[in-house]
Amino acid sequence: MRILSSFVEKGSRFYKDHPRYSKLLVVAAVSGGSLLAYSSSNSSHHETGDSESKKKRIVVLGTGWGATSYLKNLDLASYDVQVVAPRNYFAFTPLLPSVTCGTVEARSIVEPIRNIIKKSATFWEAECFKIDAKDKKVHCRPVQKSESKDKEEIIMDYDYLIVAVGARVNTFNTPGVEENCHFLKEVEDAQRIRRSVIDCFEKASLPNISEEEKKKHLHFVVVGGGPTGVEFAAELHDFVKEDISKLYPKVKDFVKITLLEAGDHILTMFDKRITAFAEEKFKRDGIDLKTGSMVVEVTNNGIRTKERSSGVVSSVPYGMAVWSTGIGTRPLISEFMQQIGQTTRRVLATDEWLRVQGNDCIYALGDCASINQRRIMEDIAVIFSKADKDNSGKLTVKQFQDVITDICERYPQVKLYLKNKKLKGISDLLKDSEGKDNSTELDIEKFKSALSQVDSEMKMLPATGQVAAQEGVYLANCFNQMAEREKNPVGPPRIRGEGRHRFHPFRYKHLGQFAPLGGEQTAAQLPGDWVSIGHSSQWLWYSVYASKQVSWRTRTMVVFDWMRRFIFGRDSSRI
Amino acid sequence: MRILSSFVEKGSRFYKDHPRYSKLLVVAAVSGGSLLAYSSSNSSHHETGDSESKKKRIVVLGTGWGATSYLKNLDLASYDVQVVAPRNYFAFTPLLPSVTCGTVEARSIVEPIRNIIKKSATFWEAECFKIDAKDKKVHCRPVQKSESKDKEEIIMDYDYLIVAVGARVNTFNTPGVEENCHFLKEVEDAQRIRRSVIDCFEKASLPNISEEEKKKHLHFVVVGGGPTGVEFAAELHDFVKEDISKLYPKVKDFVKITLLEAGDHILTMFDKRITAFAEEKFKRDGIDLKTGSMVVEVTNNGIRTKERSSGVVSSVPYGMAVWSTGIGTRPLISEFMQQIGQTTRRVLATDEWLRVQGNDCIYALGDCASINQRRIMEDIAVIFSKADKDNSGKLTVKQFQDVITDICERYPQVKLYLKNKKLKGISDLLKDSEGKDNSTELDIEKFKSALSQVDSEMKMLPATGQVAAQEGVYLANCFNQMAEREKNPVGPPRIRGEGRHRFHPFRYKHLGQFAPLGGEQTAAQLPGDWVSIGHSSQWLWYSVYASKQVSWRTRTMVVFDWMRRFIFGRDSSRI
Repeated sequence: MRILSSFVEKGSRFYKDHPRYSKLLVVAAVSGGSLLAYSSSNSSHHETGDSESKKKRIVVLGTGWGATSYLKNLDLASYDVQVVAPRNYFAFTPLLPSVTCGTVEARSIVEPIRNIIKKSATFWEAECFKIDAKDKKVHCRPVQKSESKDKEEIIMDYDYLIVAVGARVNTFNTPGVEENCHFLKEVEDAQRIRRSVIDCFEKASLPNISEEEKKKHLHFVVVGGGPTGVEFAAELHDFVKEDISKLYPKVKDFVKITLLEAGDHILTMFDKRITAFAEEKFKRDGIDLKTGSMVVEVTNNGIRTKERSSGVVSSVPYGMAVWSTGIGTRPLISEFMQQIGQTTRRVLATDEWLRVQGNDCIYALGDCASINQRRIMEDIAVIFSKADKDNSGKLTVKQFQDVITDICERYPQVKLYLKNKKLKGISDLLKDSEGKDNSTELDIEKFKSALSQVDSEMKMLPATGQVAAQEGVYLANCFNQMAEREKNPVGPPRIRGEGRHRFHPFRYKHLGQFAPLGGEQTAAQLPGDWVSIGHSSQWLWYSVYASKQVSWRTRTMVVFDWMRRFIFGRDSSRI
Repeated sequence: MRILSSFVEKGSRFYKDHPRYSKLLVVAAVSGGSLLAYSSSNSSHHETGDSESKKKRIVVLGTGWGATSYLKNLDLASYDVQVVAPRNYFAFTPLLPSVTCGTVEARSIVEPIRNIIKKSATFWEAECFKIDAKDKKVHCRPVQKSESKDKEEIIMDYDYLIVAVGARVNTFNTPGVEENCHFLKEVEDAQRIRRSVIDCFEKASLPNISEEEKKKHLHFVVVGGGPTGVEFAAELHDFVKEDISKLYPKVKDFVKITLLEAGDHILTMFDKRITAFAEEKFKRDGIDLKTGSMVVEVTNNGIRTKERSSGVVSSVPYGMAVWSTGIGTRPLISEFMQQIGQTTRRVLATDEWLRVQGNDCIYALGDCASINQRRIMEDIAVIFSKADKDNSGKLTVKQFQDVITDICERYPQVKLYLKNKKLKGISDLLKDSEGKDNSTELDIEKFKSALSQVDSEMKMLPATGQVAAQEGVYLANCFNQMAEREKNPVGPPRIRGEGRHRFHPFRYKHLGQFAPLGGEQTAAQLPGDWVSIGHSSQWLWYSVYASKQVSWRTRTMVVFDWMRRFIFGRDSSRI
């Protein structure tokens, strides 16, 4: 029996590795049913129309915030899940600026994706370069080169495709940026920046270096006044002040940190009080904040900027530059958008259920997509006629109130509008639009005019990990309930069809945002526009970021790193 | 007053950066004596014959075991010390094999050299490429490229030069090794190996990979059965067994680790019991140990080996190969050896005081040098005539005993010979050589024959961190007592001159050696040939390696890394 089972096992392993023989598998299945069923379900990625596989095949592209939170929450056993990404780990990106200066170590903020999916899904370290929506296939390429060229391409079938590949850095086609600037999106970027900072100090410390050159080498330029750029500038300032200056006493006075921002202010996504505090703090710290300054070119020798107000172009030499101005579209996404006719957009448009518009089997989340919230004005006539059950051509307040819950769910901008205008209910909205006219019935024109301002409340969600993570959780829950919700839908009624949507649409719940400003001070903007700045927020930051870690290992390591930093400072070995 | 002192300070800083103006400094010195004295002592590296500088200038090449222990023990305030090395940190190399698999992190075993020398010495990140012994200058090149080519070279004067640049890997000119194998000498090597191991697993996990290729990708070859190679093979085995196999269940059975050793046994520098235990353990662990197997070529596709016994040449495909067969000479050292006529040797020859032979101002220690112990037979006639105080042409036992302490100090092989032959004293030695002849007087011939076997006991010190570290401490102590010992020498009498040597010659005290064998077992060979193998030695290993750390930071981090590994395992993210 033992020999037999070992034979079956070996056979099963063979078939797993040679999926094209899986027809043979069916023949052999007489003697090894359960094992082979497992085997075929695992090899089904390569086989279109494999009748053995009952589970739907999900291909997930990416291991970032969106994909990881999706995978963590998905009931992996109910699907045949295949994860494909060029990096085999999840990185806790909000701590990347801390990695640049060694406040935390790179290894402390990454977790292998295989640890997250365990044995219930498969991971392949490859990069998807083409989505074929028509044939439901994705084309991928291994990240590492292999000798045999003909095997390079991996083609996978999917029943559902989850696109969560994120974005890339946007250089706005500024010449020289790719060649001369550091980015700060990946763990490797942060490691490179760390080495580069030390390099600059070592270069400046050499004996045959003029004062001019010392100044150049120790001029650190950060382009972009968003949270990442600001946090990096603050981290760098602390690193220099607290650690580096002790080790490089002879050159420490040549250090200069410049933050270039094209707009009028930094941290514009935050409350004005935070912006003002940050600008004030940077001034005190000696960080040279230059707003209204656009970078037009970066060369080996200097950064050319143009003052927005005066138009004056000048160039400053620099030792290291970090470019952190916003996000751009990955080539895979641009190409796919062309394929499906979304040519005028920057990222993939999805509906409120995170489905790529016009592609029911493809979902997109995170920085590579944005939800195209439906405008109420597009549907106004249909809504009116649905609400007007007696077809009177007039809507009573009663009839309106009957549909308002569904409208609010389907068009969240209505609720937002009411809240922002401080209106209590729908009758207030009608009053507001009607002035003093207290009519109890509305025709279509009055209905339109009552809701006409509502769509202005629609906002794109920010490109943050928080949004992507919530989308991942939402989508995983949808998939977990898919079978149940087919029969028993819970979403709002379909406006232009019969029945209800299967799921509630995605709703983002903003939990607040931090902007660490250095010197153990952090600005926090919490829900309800509650603003907190200072040392207490830093502690809040510590506890939130520790608790949000993806595993106990990273949590322990991040907390240990923080303690290590307090006790021993940051290490400046150039490794 | 404040303005004045700030002015003086600024001036002083200016002069530090512009040493060529230090003549001006003397003029300005009237108003700022103490500050300026400091300034000139720090700028004197570039100035030959700077009369202001009273401290002797020491240039130290290297930041490894030898240089670091020298710098840690040297009274830096008594000299004007300049450290030059291509890496700005000290690395605790015995833990490098642990870094390859993430048992400890790279950052935990490095310490910035600037932390060790504090402000009492200067460090430049540059590589020395030429020693000019005649003019007492060293020529260096910055590690990082700068734009201005003409400033590339840094030339430094020295009064004393400490050469501690270590060795490089010896490929024995085997073709393809440089291109296809990993080395394991530097921290970066260990980091690369770690990434490479994960790469192999990711490659093997891809879907379009045949069983053949999986086997190839997961075949790890270690060349060299010394302590480093053996420890790496053991680490890798543990990593695969304890951590990787959980994450890559489908490919874990394809993993194979092969250890190639040209000799008949591994760990030949250890006691035979350790060798036997290690070979037995590797067999149990499934590590394929191939002794008597010489690597003749490494290509992209395979490693060609030649069986020493049969002469059969065969080639095996491999996924990753680590080359760890011994050490070779750095180009700087080869070039310098040519310059001073030491052309037939592998490393620099020094005398027992670590001075490079024929160059009183140049000291060499660690792997780039070896002590050329003086043969007693070279000096036998002089020794005889010195001992024969009455010029009788005969030596009485009494006369012999008068000089024996000095002889034993100058020629430690005498003591070793007595110990190994189990002879109690010098009279036994005479008896031993003379047979039963109990004559109380010896002539020169009898004296020669009594000592004739003694020189065979001379042994080269092993190329280990332990030797280098002891040499560093010894040399630092010599330098600390230099002034005192000029007046009051404590060394043995000069054989071919008058007076005594200033210092006792260097003596190496072997404190034992470890060979970690994986599975929480370590072999330890302690002084007195005490051998201990197993789990208890592993704990000894932990405590010794924790205590030997160069700083409290690294000590804390290494211990934390070990605990982390016990609790969470090793991380397999490819960063």
